[in-house]
Amino acid sequence: MSRPAREPLDFHFDFISPYGYFASLRIDALAARHGREVRWHPMLLGVSVMKVMGLKPLLETPLKGDYVAHDVRRHALMDGIRIGRAPRTPMMNPLPAGRAFAWCLVHEAQRAKAFAQAVFDGYWVQACDYSTPASLAQPAQMAGIDPGRLVDAAQTDEASALLRAQVDAALARGIFGSPTVVVDGELFWGYDRLADVERWLSGNFGARAQAE
Amino acid sequence: MSRPAREPLDFHFDFISPYGYFASLRIDALAARHGREVRWHPMLLGVSVMKVMGLKPLLETPLKGDYVAHDVRRHALMDGIRIGRAPRTPMMNPLPAGRAFAWCLVHEAQRAKAFAQAVFDGYWVQACDYSTPASLAQPAQMAGIDPGRLVDAAQTDEASALLRAQVDAALARGIFGSPTVVVDGELFWGYDRLADVERWLSGNFGARAQAE
Repeated sequence: MSRPAREPLDFHFDFISPYGYFASLRIDALAARHGREVRWHPMLLGVSVMKVMGLKPLLETPLKGDYVAHDVRRHALMDGIRIGRAPRTPMMNPLPAGRAFAWCLVHEAQRAKAFAQAVFDGYWVQACDYSTPASLAQPAQMAGIDPGRLVDAAQTDEASALLRAQVDAALARGIFGSPTVVVDGELFWGYDRLADVERWLSGNFGARAQAE
Repeated sequence: MSRPAREPLDFHFDFISPYGYFASLRIDALAARHGREVRWHPMLLGVSVMKVMGLKPLLETPLKGDYVAHDVRRHALMDGIRIGRAPRTPMMNPLPAGRAFAWCLVHEAQRAKAFAQAVFDGYWVQACDYSTPASLAQPAQMAGIDPGRLVDAAQTDEASALLRAQVDAALARGIFGSPTVVVDGELFWGYDRLADVERWLSGNFGARAQAE
């Protein structure tokens, strides 16, 4: 007799990933429908995709880059999501926001998710750029975090080490893309796989997979 | 006043793509629910992914290869599809089957889809290998096509040119992955996007996308 698992889901994303942004709008409600919490984690596509996998950035890949640029706008249209960033605008440097968020997870645990949501909203809807630590004062304020403290923290070695630890832990789990959701040890990569996450949470696939 | 579009869907796939196989099991019924036919087209990932995009084969890409190998088995489990091929078995040479199918589309139009379905089933469920023209006698027979005629045809310059024309036409449309479904000019890449194909067919997104 085994107790049904009620472990939180792990949601891994890069702020510069549009599909990560789309998933961020749905993942908590999806998990809540199944009595689950969600832990949010920063990752860096620049490390997983480019350094470990040896691939080009998505938007610079022939054919796929054009497809993705169109698909993001189409998905936003179909889901009624407003994207304020012009297509093909160069991405921001994701390091300051990633470091700040990794720091928040430790030092502002109650407000960390609100900070990440403010960064996502600012970047994708308001077309803000958070490439510098100073620019993070605004999402900090939105999340109820002292802006000066966060701007300072984002520049510390500690924040840098905390982000690195998150990135390394994700890679060790086999995570390479944004978004990736981990449910009871099962990885689901891609915004378009949230339906699978929901099916997995609803079904008894885990037991059957183990029996195979 | 515009007449609602009733153009057939175009379904592009490589026989060695497991997600292409999964999609082949659903695409005609999906289209039929919306009063549409489906035209099937061979493509070659070896050309689009490796030559044009400059990427590694999926299963040889670090992290992603492991993920995909697992995801294919998980998807089969969730959808109740039997996969007879052992994971990580080297892929067959897709050229003979692609050439034969391209030839069937012209010379055996009524049986071409049945031939493609027999190849998909033989390869993914029965773990057959169709790397040689001679091996195609079996799926030809299944589809009601004279096996000797098809085996000979698969080795002709004409079959080779017909496949090349399909591959080039797909690339010209911006198609790079398997499966890709084209609906009224909109490309949807990925088995996990069939739900989007269905939403697109149900909704009025085309008109709204054009108005943007």
